Amino acid sequence: MGYKVAVVGATGAVGREMIKIIEQRNFPVSELKLLASSRSKGKEIEFRGESIKVEELNETTIKGSDVYLFSAGASISRQFAPLAAKSGVVIDNSSAFRMEPDVPLVVPEVNAEEALKHNGIIANPNCSTIQMVVALYPLHLKFKIKKIIVATYQSVSGTGQKAINELERQVRAWVSDGVPEAEVYPYPIAFNLIPRIDVVQDNLYTKEEMKMVAETRKIMRAPEILVCATCVRVPVFRCHSEAVTVEFSVYASLDEVRRVLENAPGVKVMDDPFNDIYPTPLELAHTDDVYVGRIREPLVFENGVSLWIVADNLRKGAALNAVQIAEYLHLKQAL
Amino acid sequence: MGYKVAVVGATGAVGREMIKIIEQRNFPVSELKLLASSRSKGKEIEFRGESIKVEELNETTIKGSDVYLFSAGASISRQFAPLAAKSGVVIDNSSAFRMEPDVPLVVPEVNAEEALKHNGIIANPNCSTIQMVVALYPLHLKFKIKKIIVATYQSVSGTGQKAINELERQVRAWVSDGVPEAEVYPYPIAFNLIPRIDVVQDNLYTKEEMKMVAETRKIMRAPEILVCATCVRVPVFRCHSEAVTVEFSVYASLDEVRRVLENAPGVKVMDDPFNDIYPTPLELAHTDDVYVGRIREPLVFENGVSLWIVADNLRKGAALNAVQIAEYLHLKQAL
Repeated sequence: MGYKVAVVGATGAVGREMIKIIEQRNFPVSELKLLASSRSKGKEIEFRGESIKVEELNETTIKGSDVYLFSAGASISRQFAPLAAKSGVVIDNSSAFRMEPDVPLVVPEVNAEEALKHNGIIANPNCSTIQMVVALYPLHLKFKIKKIIVATYQSVSGTGQKAINELERQVRAWVSDGVPEAEVYPYPIAFNLIPRIDVVQDNLYTKEEMKMVAETRKIMRAPEILVCATCVRVPVFRCHSEAVTVEFSVYASLDEVRRVLENAPGVKVMDDPFNDIYPTPLELAHTDDVYVGRIREPLVFENGVSLWIVADNLRKGAALNAVQIAEYLHLKQAL
Repeated sequence: MGYKVAVVGATGAVGREMIKIIEQRNFPVSELKLLASSRSKGKEIEFRGESIKVEELNETTIKGSDVYLFSAGASISRQFAPLAAKSGVVIDNSSAFRMEPDVPLVVPEVNAEEALKHNGIIANPNCSTIQMVVALYPLHLKFKIKKIIVATYQSVSGTGQKAINELERQVRAWVSDGVPEAEVYPYPIAFNLIPRIDVVQDNLYTKEEMKMVAETRKIMRAPEILVCATCVRVPVFRCHSEAVTVEFSVYASLDEVRRVLENAPGVKVMDDPFNDIYPTPLELAHTDDVYVGRIREPLVFENGVSLWIVADNLRKGAALNAVQIAEYLHLKQAL
């Protein structure tokens, strides 16, 4: 009993996390196919105590599964997701289809039901956007958000396994008085910050920053919300963190905000700064919730709040969210 | 010819930088006295090719200098600055006197002339505030700032030499599979972020965050400006970085903003993101200017701008600013 599941990009940082999460959450799998580029062909990955060989992704291997979890970059998705969608449902972690009007962009805590409207492809949002909307959507429902100003502190795992390796390599080089050479990023990331994630657009915002604008509006079905994002890479391995200042349409006391967050699905409030209780990325790596702390008056808006939001970008920001979408479809007998 | 100069806290991260900067900028010194706690007594520090012995700070050694550069913490300043002010001018890098109405709080590019109004003590602002006002004041003069939302990315050297050592020790422990123990900060700072700098106040903002509110208003003589700050420690050795979104009272095109910044004293525009030209802390360590990049429309305000601001927190954010104040007084023959 179960579904034939294919993970496309199985050897990447997100792909490996997808496999782990399917196992940890006991998603009903009858067959797991692991697909990747020819470079990874033949590698073996553990799943439920067995070793599964990675197959090369091509027009033959992509056929015949019920559920496809894609995380191999936008161009692979553009090429193979339409083929996969002929036999099953594609949940795509790339940016390829996110803004297409007929592709649902889903964060289950926010708009699970959108997933049912798919035409074969469901998009998994950007990691920075997911954790932000999980925390902000329940506040939007109560207090109607007008503006969001967000500065991100994004870990290297968001770039992928090669960036994880690069930070580690640079730190080791630094310790042994070597030169921390930069390959993945334009500058060393060890002991540094890089305020440019993804390519720069005509309006001088990066694509990552504009994803936070467009995806937030689409997921929350709130095209009127204004968003200003600054996305920055930091020398952290896992978890993205965000300093978020929000303007509401109506007044909300901090107690009300806290109560809404405490009852919000997928959110954990971690907020006693007097006792050094606030979310930190190192401590929260490998967790599943979106953690919110430093809840305080925004000072620049009469109505609103300032928050510090941390979540594991590989789990809730990517793999877990994708598996949760599959779980929702399963629950609704829509697979 | 020159002044009798005393550096109080001479062996700390900022104190050592003060000594270097006095030498580099050829400040007219006839005698340099180095004062520190009894722990550091007898240490030797190079100045202009000579070795100067550190003396213990006490009620005798504090006497008789013309210029005092204090950077030994607020309680030392509270105890010894009034004594020092009997014989000379104190430029104090601690927070002890910053908000006292009769103590000038000076960033020479913004309000140098305030320094002349001192009653013996001049306060050097908080590092995060200095770099922000150097960049924002010229914009305020042209476009009248209404609101500032800032998220900081502050290096460990802002905490002092012991925090520099802690980050290094933790990274070395990590490389050799040891445990990166935390002593200075409540959590490891290596590969982590700590969203709490200085103590938490009743309004749930930290003292560091509220310094950015109060000091910005005082330095810019603009009590009406609203400021929301989130201050975060990052695993970087030197330079503080800031993601800043500003609302102006009047419209300003990006070209106008850029022109103002390009002509602003102490500011260097570094803004060609298409070619990966933007300020990064690793590259800008040991420089003297305030670097501004990622200049773009704020998206949440009709009038305003978003910026990324980086400066060396030990130099412009502390030691250099203090020495610049002394230079200004010298220039005005007010020492």
